[in-house]
Amino acid sequence: MANKDVTDPVRMEKIVSLCKRRGFIFQAGELYGGLNGCWDYGPLGTELKRNLKDYWWRKTVQERDDVLGMDGAILTMEQVLVSSGHVGGFSDPMVDCKTCKGRFRADSLETYECKEKPSVRPGGSPKCELTEPRDFNLMLQTNFGATGEQIAYLRPETAQSIFCQYKNVLDSNRIKLPFGIAQVGKSFRNEINPRNYIFRSREFEQMEIEYFCRPEDGMRLTEEWLETRLCFYQDIGIPREKLHILDVPDGDRAFYSRKTYDIEYEFPFGIQELEGVAYRTDYDLGVHQKGAGKPLEYFDEETKEKFLPHVVEPSAGCDRTVLALICEAFDEEELGTEGKSDVRTVMRFVPKMAPVKVGIFPLMKKNEEQVRISREIQHTLRPWMNVFYDDGGAVGRRYRRQDEIGTPFCVTIDFETLGESSDDLKNTVTVRHRDSMEQERLPIAGLLPWLLERVR
Amino acid sequence: MANKDVTDPVRMEKIVSLCKRRGFIFQAGELYGGLNGCWDYGPLGTELKRNLKDYWWRKTVQERDDVLGMDGAILTMEQVLVSSGHVGGFSDPMVDCKTCKGRFRADSLETYECKEKPSVRPGGSPKCELTEPRDFNLMLQTNFGATGEQIAYLRPETAQSIFCQYKNVLDSNRIKLPFGIAQVGKSFRNEINPRNYIFRSREFEQMEIEYFCRPEDGMRLTEEWLETRLCFYQDIGIPREKLHILDVPDGDRAFYSRKTYDIEYEFPFGIQELEGVAYRTDYDLGVHQKGAGKPLEYFDEETKEKFLPHVVEPSAGCDRTVLALICEAFDEEELGTEGKSDVRTVMRFVPKMAPVKVGIFPLMKKNEEQVRISREIQHTLRPWMNVFYDDGGAVGRRYRRQDEIGTPFCVTIDFETLGESSDDLKNTVTVRHRDSMEQERLPIAGLLPWLLERVR
Repeated sequence: MANKDVTDPVRMEKIVSLCKRRGFIFQAGELYGGLNGCWDYGPLGTELKRNLKDYWWRKTVQERDDVLGMDGAILTMEQVLVSSGHVGGFSDPMVDCKTCKGRFRADSLETYECKEKPSVRPGGSPKCELTEPRDFNLMLQTNFGATGEQIAYLRPETAQSIFCQYKNVLDSNRIKLPFGIAQVGKSFRNEINPRNYIFRSREFEQMEIEYFCRPEDGMRLTEEWLETRLCFYQDIGIPREKLHILDVPDGDRAFYSRKTYDIEYEFPFGIQELEGVAYRTDYDLGVHQKGAGKPLEYFDEETKEKFLPHVVEPSAGCDRTVLALICEAFDEEELGTEGKSDVRTVMRFVPKMAPVKVGIFPLMKKNEEQVRISREIQHTLRPWMNVFYDDGGAVGRRYRRQDEIGTPFCVTIDFETLGESSDDLKNTVTVRHRDSMEQERLPIAGLLPWLLERVR
Repeated sequence: MANKDVTDPVRMEKIVSLCKRRGFIFQAGELYGGLNGCWDYGPLGTELKRNLKDYWWRKTVQERDDVLGMDGAILTMEQVLVSSGHVGGFSDPMVDCKTCKGRFRADSLETYECKEKPSVRPGGSPKCELTEPRDFNLMLQTNFGATGEQIAYLRPETAQSIFCQYKNVLDSNRIKLPFGIAQVGKSFRNEINPRNYIFRSREFEQMEIEYFCRPEDGMRLTEEWLETRLCFYQDIGIPREKLHILDVPDGDRAFYSRKTYDIEYEFPFGIQELEGVAYRTDYDLGVHQKGAGKPLEYFDEETKEKFLPHVVEPSAGCDRTVLALICEAFDEEELGTEGKSDVRTVMRFVPKMAPVKVGIFPLMKKNEEQVRISREIQHTLRPWMNVFYDDGGAVGRRYRRQDEIGTPFCVTIDFETLGESSDDLKNTVTVRHRDSMEQERLPIAGLLPWLLERVR
């Protein structure tokens, strides 16, 4: 069993540095000193995140008969969050240090330091006097309307809009239990101590499914969804052995949850949660039915029963999964021979997650025919996948630049392509594989289907 | 020249009704009475919006060498918006009606009614006394941090994070002027009078490009981008003759803009803006360079010049383009013969925008072989496109249900498919075209490439 405390800060530092240098992730507002807990995705990070979200959507919504998508507003009515319990209870217990006036989570004091006396920890020093714990609501609030008289919250989770629209979705689609509603979108929490890069931030994206079912199927479907979600992670390149399943014990689960699994990943900063799969019973529909005073029951045509469906919720963090993909992909490979050191930095994304699918290189940028064919290939491929055209410098250096951003294939158009060495090689190109660095020769005409089979 | 005041409220009502009934769009928080100016997309609306955003991304980022994507945070530092001018000047002039206490935009009083005396309009009634106009900032604010001491705004446009990260994007990519940075994402404005369905809402999504160039190229590139964007709209099914180009005159443009075109569409509620193409000069980089106190100049390797790039900004409203697609697609076709009325409701989306690409129907749901083949076809197609399997009711009614949501093709698996009428027809299916209602016979093996050619 892996230890939660095993960390590798040096590796993490290298990852953060690469992400900035190559344009995966920047701090939000960096130009003005930075906005703590908020991040901007650069060109490559945006593509990586898009690939993750698109693949989740494809597997969760598009390729299933029983899940429908939705896309709800971020601004949320107060009444919705009163019913859900967020206004009253979505809070962390906080204590204030009377010495430095800092505010700390009461349940994890050991990780924070008194700002006045950095060597002592508020929980561990008799000199730091702490206030009694008080609840501190984690939601971000805003006001709108002509006189600013209306309160709204930035949703703390995408789930609530699904519960609130469950009836509309049901009524506008001929669908029967069990069925799910899926959503990808941003949520906001006033985390007191955002940390671990993009892992815990104030603005984050979720990929959530609320799966509605008959009460007697809840426990079984929770197990099924856990398995489905584990397969998904494996599918995007996070090996099963790096994932840990925490069966959240009684007392640690939300009071309405009959079963909760946390899916955790071995980050360089410790083992941390990627996703929760929770059996929430009929709690959510129940509180909204009561709060809104409108029936949310399901009528079963066959059994003529009327009841509130139960809910299984697989809820994944999108940004933390992006971070897991990056951490898992990062590799430094020693290639040196005879005492000469040569380290290759390579991001080993599975091809369907890679931000760029293929690099296209004319061997000689001054050879017009090579350039013409390269541009033709680029033109053919790019409606189907993200390609990068590069004619700068030696081919070996171009390969390395693509290795560093995880491009799985590079195509080189050379003198052989023009038929200069033999007729057999005319209209073929070199395809170089990122991981093995091996090369093979493929006909241009077969390139698109060959790649499509490997990068989707 | 079309008249801005020509409206068709009956048509608009039908569109809104269909969107609710079939699950395109619901009001946010409807269960609790609704959140004014916010909307949730249902299953079909979500797919439609995804298709629009994905196609914009493909054409703008993926298929161009000169545009990179990014995805910035919604929460924005106050300093960013002080520099950009939003904190000081992003406001509407408002007046209060002393009779009903309502607040109205001073520049368009004719469209509002006094709530106390609905028959009179505040601007047109001597009995309604109005206050002097006052500026009312349109940004939504929130507070965060342990004691709620930090102010942030919900971004009023995606553009500012692009300007703030321009240098990071430039430094992390080997790219030269001219180049663009593109972003799709949500923005927020405290619209006093959200209206016209999803056209003017408080939470909305933008598709923005900031295209950086040498000063001398700004005017020419503005014209080029206008043309590129007009082609895009044509490409997604909005005919050129329904688009109007407004060359915004001096005095109506932002003070820093040397040229602004508005691209407008003939909505059923009047001609309204879809997108602005604005030549913003070096205003934006200039104010951030000054505000942040950090150089944002571009160094031209060839000419050895150092200067602030100019910016051309094509900025499109995503939700209003979705609405334009819906309005343009909506059709009621009279099919009745011999005095019998039969009206077919059909959404004539171009196939690449349609939420569902193909309906798959076994003719007889009890015929095991038809069902088996139907499921096989579904399985083959759905990694590539959104399909809908339907075995309920007569095929004619299934066609009509798909017509109403704009599915361009329906595939029926029948007795001929099983080879029961002739060997020639074995393993072929009927493909029915939505617009012409014509049918043709295609081999199952050729279905995927046939569809891919038509629906992407």
